[in-house]
Amino acid sequence: MTKIVPVVLCGGSGTRLWPRSRKTKPKPFLPLIGERTMFEATLGRCGDAGQFAPPLIVTGTAHLEHVEEQAGAVPGATVIVEPEAKNTAAAIALAAGRLPPDAVMLVCPSDHHIADEPAFRAAAAAAAKLAADGWLVAFGITATAPETGYGYIKRGDPLEGGYRVERFVEKPDRATAQQFLADGSYSWNGGIFAFRAGRFLDELAAHRPALADAAARSVASGSEDGSRFHPDATAFAAIEPESVDYAVMEETDRAAMVPASIGWSDIGSWAALRDATDSDHDGNSVRGRAELVDCTGVFVDTDGPRVSVIGLKDVAIVVDRDEVLVTTMEGAQKVGKLGGAAQQ
Amino acid sequence: MTKIVPVVLCGGSGTRLWPRSRKTKPKPFLPLIGERTMFEATLGRCGDAGQFAPPLIVTGTAHLEHVEEQAGAVPGATVIVEPEAKNTAAAIALAAGRLPPDAVMLVCPSDHHIADEPAFRAAAAAAAKLAADGWLVAFGITATAPETGYGYIKRGDPLEGGYRVERFVEKPDRATAQQFLADGSYSWNGGIFAFRAGRFLDELAAHRPALADAAARSVASGSEDGSRFHPDATAFAAIEPESVDYAVMEETDRAAMVPASIGWSDIGSWAALRDATDSDHDGNSVRGRAELVDCTGVFVDTDGPRVSVIGLKDVAIVVDRDEVLVTTMEGAQKVGKLGGAAQQ
Repeated sequence: MTKIVPVVLCGGSGTRLWPRSRKTKPKPFLPLIGERTMFEATLGRCGDAGQFAPPLIVTGTAHLEHVEEQAGAVPGATVIVEPEAKNTAAAIALAAGRLPPDAVMLVCPSDHHIADEPAFRAAAAAAAKLAADGWLVAFGITATAPETGYGYIKRGDPLEGGYRVERFVEKPDRATAQQFLADGSYSWNGGIFAFRAGRFLDELAAHRPALADAAARSVASGSEDGSRFHPDATAFAAIEPESVDYAVMEETDRAAMVPASIGWSDIGSWAALRDATDSDHDGNSVRGRAELVDCTGVFVDTDGPRVSVIGLKDVAIVVDRDEVLVTTMEGAQKVGKLGGAAQQ
Repeated sequence: MTKIVPVVLCGGSGTRLWPRSRKTKPKPFLPLIGERTMFEATLGRCGDAGQFAPPLIVTGTAHLEHVEEQAGAVPGATVIVEPEAKNTAAAIALAAGRLPPDAVMLVCPSDHHIADEPAFRAAAAAAAKLAADGWLVAFGITATAPETGYGYIKRGDPLEGGYRVERFVEKPDRATAQQFLADGSYSWNGGIFAFRAGRFLDELAAHRPALADAAARSVASGSEDGSRFHPDATAFAAIEPESVDYAVMEETDRAAMVPASIGWSDIGSWAALRDATDSDHDGNSVRGRAELVDCTGVFVDTDGPRVSVIGLKDVAIVVDRDEVLVTTMEGAQKVGKLGGAAQQ
């Protein structure tokens, strides 16, 4: 079997982990869990040379410096520098256009945490096998809570190593999410996909011909510069931004999923980061100098000053240079709406 | 009537307002409420030249620099520099020993907040009148809550402008404090006293002759240096530290009290400071740059970094240089036990 080509998407600049994550150095490039950054960890889990080819990274000029600094030690890594952000369908189309049609690509967001790497590699192998057979494959993350912040995948008939997708479901309300969890045939859409490059482009051409055409022209007229590839900006500029979920996965009749019980988290809030981090017997997680008295479920992350906390429960405290954030875990979803997060 | 001599005591270094209050610059010298420091406000409320003589300040070498810097603009202010801290009986004895026997002194802690200055001056006038008649007078702060952190004064028979003290009561438990509050004849002992200097020294000589003698010798052998007076250190070293409450007020049969409804707070915790500070309609008080979302009763005091808070209730957040404190109001009494407060 041919090696899987990791296609690592490094775009966006979420504000939900402000003030640690900022426009100039967003989430993928921060060591939020352990010593490695989220991006380094993404490369690392696709680093088994027996299973994976060198990675193809898609990013914008804003993050190019971070990408090249942190990917520098990965042999054969190449970078596609997007002229502008056009969402995931376009980013994946550029990568697919740079690969041989038979190459099996594994699309990986660069800012998710995956605790169980062997399980990830097993799921990647199963997905790659289905992709080689022409399926467009999504990782179906085993749902462990009635999350309302994720899209869901309902599985259909079984395939070898996975299932057909019966349908994709938008972010549900709480009651619906609870039904999904109880039902057992729904999993989270983690944004990890496997395709044969040519199959992906064929499906894109069938369902979004203009997007496919513009991406193809952008690749054809692009220029190489060492390990960088610069797609043509004029052709790319015409693209309507759309997610791969909408443009391809919900359109194709060859959508499949592989169950992935891999300790996944999108680290989409300080609450999620606390839950993904080692904690003491009171459920407190600390990074940096801190003293906690009568606290449970408290998360502290400080880049310098000592943080002393008394009597709190389920609160995140983050100190980053000139900003201090103190939020309940429940309130953490509002972090992106803070003045500080908006102004940065 | 002769003018009252304010005797301002600047000792101690509480840790309950750590990290803002530190050993090197404790509570009296900080602008915790409004623009003036607690010490400046203490001098200010005794600054009416029609009612008060220039102040006599008793402090130690540790705080002398702050005292002289902040008292510099007060005409005629003088300072007694204690060789070491020996509690309030000794400090007041030094001051009394430096004054004419007929002088009426008003002993004022330098780290209390008094919101109603006209009421304070009225109470001071009433206390001074009783003191001139030979009474040893305590301010009886009108109790407004069943506080367990203060001593109480039970009033007895009425006097002109005040009452005899029936008894002084140690810090009570909660149930007792609630009885006191319901009873109505108990007030808080705010540590503000009025004495005729000679009467005070006579009572001290009667009840604590060794202390009185050592203080008298320390004054007699002391030396003047401009506006500073340095008591003799050898004589002073022999003194057993004791509070004026124990050494004199609880011993004398001439103890009186004046009711004082003066908006008093000892600012003995971050909770007390919040309560004494102006707040918005959600009960939040902010000093420095901060953004509060879905908060009630939150107190923020930051010396630089912006503090963003989401979803909290009755919490104090204090940023001071290299220290960040986050505590529930209930937990604020434990601040002094934190490692940071102990190490400073």
